[in-house]
Amino acid sequence: MKTHTAYLTFATERRREFVRITEDVDRAVEESGVTEGMVLVSAMHITAGVWINDDEPGILEDTLEWLDKLAPPSWAPPANETARELSPDPGDFRHHRGGEDNGDAHWKNLLVHHQVIVPITGGKLDLGPWQAIFYAEFDGGRSKRLVMKVMGE
Amino acid sequence: MKTHTAYLTFATERRREFVRITEDVDRAVEESGVTEGMVLVSAMHITAGVWINDDEPGILEDTLEWLDKLAPPSWAPPANETARELSPDPGDFRHHRGGEDNGDAHWKNLLVHHQVIVPITGGKLDLGPWQAIFYAEFDGGRSKRLVMKVMGE
Amino acid sequence: MKTHTAYLTFATERRREFVRITEDVDRAVEESGVTEGMVLVSAMHITAGVWINDDEPGILEDTLEWLDKLAPPSWAPPANETARELSPDPGDFRHHRGGEDNGDAHWKNLLVHHQVIVPITGGKLDLGPWQAIFYAEFDGGRSKRLVMKVMGE
Repeated sequence: MKTHTAYLTFATERRREFVRITEDVDRAVEESGVTEGMVLVSAMHITAGVWINDDEPGILEDTLEWLDKLAPPSWAPPANETARELSPDPGDFRHHRGGEDNGDAHWKNLLVHHQVIVPITGGKLDLGPWQAIFYAEFDGGRSKRLVMKVMGE
Repeated sequence: MKTHTAYLTFATERRREFVRITEDVDRAVEESGVTEGMVLVSAMHITAGVWINDDEPGILEDTLEWLDKLAPPSWAPPANETARELSPDPGDFRHHRGGEDNGDAHWKNLLVHHQVIVPITGGKLDLGPWQAIFYAEFDGGRSKRLVMKVMGE
Repeated sequence: MKTHTAYLTFATERRREFVRITEDVDRAVEESGVTEGMVLVSAMHITAGVWINDDEPGILEDTLEWLDKLAPPSWAPPANETARELSPDPGDFRHHRGGEDNGDAHWKNLLVHHQVIVPITGGKLDLGPWQAIFYAEFDGGRSKRLVMKVMGE
């Protein structure tokens, strides 16, 4: 059995952003020498996620807009009445009492989930034809990490 | 250490459908000879998911209706005002500029998540009494794949 | 290769509750003797979840309030118009025809996801500085189980 651990660091310019990392995960698998197994790709922060989806700018933009309605930030006016009603009832996040303003990013972490596992078959990521791996930043502008853990033989 | 890889192919008649696959996963584990380990069950498409929940028709129907409100299709009228407000602000998905009409299925993939891992203990899927495994199709009517990767000893 | 399986049992007093389990997962890893690998932490019920997030009471309270809007219970009045519109259209969950009243807990299970995998590096849980592991109970008041499966070397 082999294991291999690698980390990525992100410091996105924008507060929210999808960053393609398929090739980084590929590299970690290659370094590991594992040909049959799995690689866990997991954000180490509570305001970020990992999503496997389409590398098509339209759907990524659609998704950021939609996540701001389902999990509305309180540092911007709500997008519409539904976003207003999904906002915290005290008027702002209880979480913000300590001086934070990123409550919405915690909720986006919940919706997107912070990790995926990719199977490794014949030395390659066993992904479908349109599956790309994205790090999803919801509270960027500072240094954040992600862990890749490869396990197999 | 042993690994085993198996694939399932789906071509649902309906556009959206939950398909029970507990027995298929069971079979893959049996074929693998693994008695202690894990099996990853992962949709290979960006418009499908995998959900572990109750094999009870009512909750599955409730869930499809609810997902159409949270992640509204643009090929049908919105279910109500909330669904309308959760729809993309440009009037349609930016993703549809390329001729697609399945943006909602990408969002349902995000909500449901595209994969689960089931522990294997004593040669059996270590599931709770009501946990059944479902492939969740959100853009069916064509051939789609799912991978099962068994790993253990 | 080593594997180790441990279970936790919960019987929360409240119907909904986040229960911190980081230390329980830590203990299972220590018992396993695994220093490089992964631990799967998975609720064995269809009305519970596992969330890795911030051990800060404000965000946990915010999140329970928000989940009640996105996945509204039918045993309480809806929080507002959005929650009412996200409720099942037949007036109540189809799932409740059999006498249940926990349809909302199935939906919360979907949103939160019922499992996480934590990498193990150098004999320790390889978590980020603010990542704590929570069992998320959405239909408590009775005995429920969670499985931890450790795998590695």
